[in-house]
Amino acid sequence: MDFKELASKYKTPLYVYDFNYIKERYEALKNAFYARKSLVCYAVKANSNLSVLKFLADLGAGFDCVSIGEVKRALMVGAKRYQIIFSGVGKSDEELKEALENEILLINVESFAELLRLEEIAKGLNLKARISIRVNPGVDAKTHPYISTGLNENKFGVDAQTAKKMYIHAKTSEFLEPTGIHFHIGSQLTSLSPIIDAAKIVSELLRELRALEIDIKFFDVGGGLGIIYNDEKEINLYDYAQGILGALKGQDVTIVCEPGRFIVGNAGYFVASVLYEKFNGKKRFVITDGAMNDLIRPSLYGAHHKIFAYGKDENLGTCDVVGPVCESGDFLAKDIKLPECESGDIIVVKGAGAYGFSMSSNYNTRNRAAEVCVLDGKDRLIRRRECFEDVVAPEIEFLESADARAK
Amino acid sequence: MDFKELASKYKTPLYVYDFNYIKERYEALKNAFYARKSLVCYAVKANSNLSVLKFLADLGAGFDCVSIGEVKRALMVGAKRYQIIFSGVGKSDEELKEALENEILLINVESFAELLRLEEIAKGLNLKARISIRVNPGVDAKTHPYISTGLNENKFGVDAQTAKKMYIHAKTSEFLEPTGIHFHIGSQLTSLSPIIDAAKIVSELLRELRALEIDIKFFDVGGGLGIIYNDEKEINLYDYAQGILGALKGQDVTIVCEPGRFIVGNAGYFVASVLYEKFNGKKRFVITDGAMNDLIRPSLYGAHHKIFAYGKDENLGTCDVVGPVCESGDFLAKDIKLPECESGDIIVVKGAGAYGFSMSSNYNTRNRAAEVCVLDGKDRLIRRRECFEDVVAPEIEFLESADARAK
Repeated sequence: MDFKELASKYKTPLYVYDFNYIKERYEALKNAFYARKSLVCYAVKANSNLSVLKFLADLGAGFDCVSIGEVKRALMVGAKRYQIIFSGVGKSDEELKEALENEILLINVESFAELLRLEEIAKGLNLKARISIRVNPGVDAKTHPYISTGLNENKFGVDAQTAKKMYIHAKTSEFLEPTGIHFHIGSQLTSLSPIIDAAKIVSELLRELRALEIDIKFFDVGGGLGIIYNDEKEINLYDYAQGILGALKGQDVTIVCEPGRFIVGNAGYFVASVLYEKFNGKKRFVITDGAMNDLIRPSLYGAHHKIFAYGKDENLGTCDVVGPVCESGDFLAKDIKLPECESGDIIVVKGAGAYGFSMSSNYNTRNRAAEVCVLDGKDRLIRRRECFEDVVAPEIEFLESADARAK
Repeated sequence: MDFKELASKYKTPLYVYDFNYIKERYEALKNAFYARKSLVCYAVKANSNLSVLKFLADLGAGFDCVSIGEVKRALMVGAKRYQIIFSGVGKSDEELKEALENEILLINVESFAELLRLEEIAKGLNLKARISIRVNPGVDAKTHPYISTGLNENKFGVDAQTAKKMYIHAKTSEFLEPTGIHFHIGSQLTSLSPIIDAAKIVSELLRELRALEIDIKFFDVGGGLGIIYNDEKEINLYDYAQGILGALKGQDVTIVCEPGRFIVGNAGYFVASVLYEKFNGKKRFVITDGAMNDLIRPSLYGAHHKIFAYGKDENLGTCDVVGPVCESGDFLAKDIKLPECESGDIIVVKGAGAYGFSMSSNYNTRNRAAEVCVLDGKDRLIRRRECFEDVVAPEIEFLESADARAK
């Protein structure tokens, strides 16, 4: 991709997404479950841009949503109601109500208290809530503690025994319909065995439920497939699918998976312009117009992203790549090799398609970046750059003078 | 404050600011420099709500801004041009141009390259740029590495020798006017001696500059005064002022300070509602409707905030207070004592006035919280809660159907 031209056309900082790559990744995963009943539900939180969602909906993807806002996004791009799942550890009453009214496929329940609450809300609406229960299998996903979710010390899901009790309660309820079973042990997983271990535990519970005539149709294995940021090894998709099928031991269910990062992570590039190079003592800094408010992963997770200076590859020297935000935590990379840069050079951060823009903020009153997609060599804007007026809009009407206050 | 009533009136999650406390803190700092030429420039980045800025402007405060967006905010609330400073390690050409056109008091320059760039831009506008240079004194501020800024390994400022060369260059330039000198060694400082050490180093440079007939009028000691989150001890303001005056040894300058957190930190409360209590094994979770997208400090800096359940104080037990966001990094506090909570109880997070809302995001397609101020017992909205339509507005016009793409 000609990042120089894209930067010149759309200005920086900028997010660029390769839609051909998104298609390739979606289809690779879909094909891994070829000839099996499967539903790939894209995890909206990874990158929730409406055009990304629309593109995936057109390919046939379903959607894994973690707020009613994400459900609305999915509906807005024409996703089918029966391909939308609503997950999350803290759904409000209003969110549950709206999800029920929209008749989505499944509501993923994460505690007994939530199950009872959902039942009450469904009763109020005189509807039957199709539910899935998130089982926390107590498996160590071996990833960053912030994105590891399968241990009992995490807030997510319930243990298998509690899940069983919840299903039994649901079976007897007029307003609940046990439809799916769910687990998700973490994000950016590069080791297959914890996923298969979890699948076996949940598959065993599935068998027990069937013995109780609780008929579960969807076996949701969550997401979390890791990608290559640096020198990681990706999980082989054939092994992944076969491992899950093996764990199921022939039980007839539709397999649901919820990839987010896997699909969009390496489709995305964060593009920034160099403002200055600077030495403080022996320490070299490349200061760009992109900052932690645009991409917080390096600062928040200590995440490593590969970075290159577009069109340059000589005279490599060590530097920190930092942004204009007023704290030392504002860095895109530390101690990486880059050629000598000058004002106006283009810096490209790889692997920025997931948890990039979706976590961005207006910190330091910085307008959030524009987003662009490239499909079959053609680029177009999919989110315009914010302006100052956008940022202050919800505040400006409440500005009141000291005189008015005195009255 | 009746947080239950405020929560009921404005809904949760919610930020509440005590404007009487803001006034008290501003005046305490202003009075510490009583009978001396001083300018308190509030650091907008800590909490940039327009009504907060307006309130401080009406009290006579100046403003320390780190982006042109922050300069615009200050101008919008009626701040005087000669009380606005523009700082930051990575200002773009457009930002420098706009700052010059608005004839603000000072542009804080952080590298020789930036000085030359500013000179060129001022020349293009046929203006004289009033500058200050940020000196990095090489002092260890003894605070969190992300907010420590006075060491040579940080990206901020220039060493004293470079600063001197820059001032000499500026003095000979038709388009630059050396007006101030600046340092800022970090944020949340609870030890006075590093500040005074830095003041002495910069004061010595000031003396050398005067010997070269470079007439500096503003001595900017930065901000960073720490506050009490837990059991910290605040720096005594009298000692602070006397220490700085002592370091100046009678040199006649206006002292500028840039408090942010000091003024607003403990004026702010983050208010959330309990959705559920939940046990995973022995681990207890209080799940609230407030999350890391609202308040990222615990997750990003490992920051400790005191939290209480409004109107309850018995049967204390250990728990994690977490939000609905789908990652284990989403917590407001870990292993703290709270009474047994039920759905609808109000949780109040203290010390949330600084770097709270200003760092908030729409992660998980969560609408950003509303902000409310309380002054003399009267509350009013100062930023309305976002709605779904706000969040998707910059994207929706770019939604394109697959049919349109095929054409």
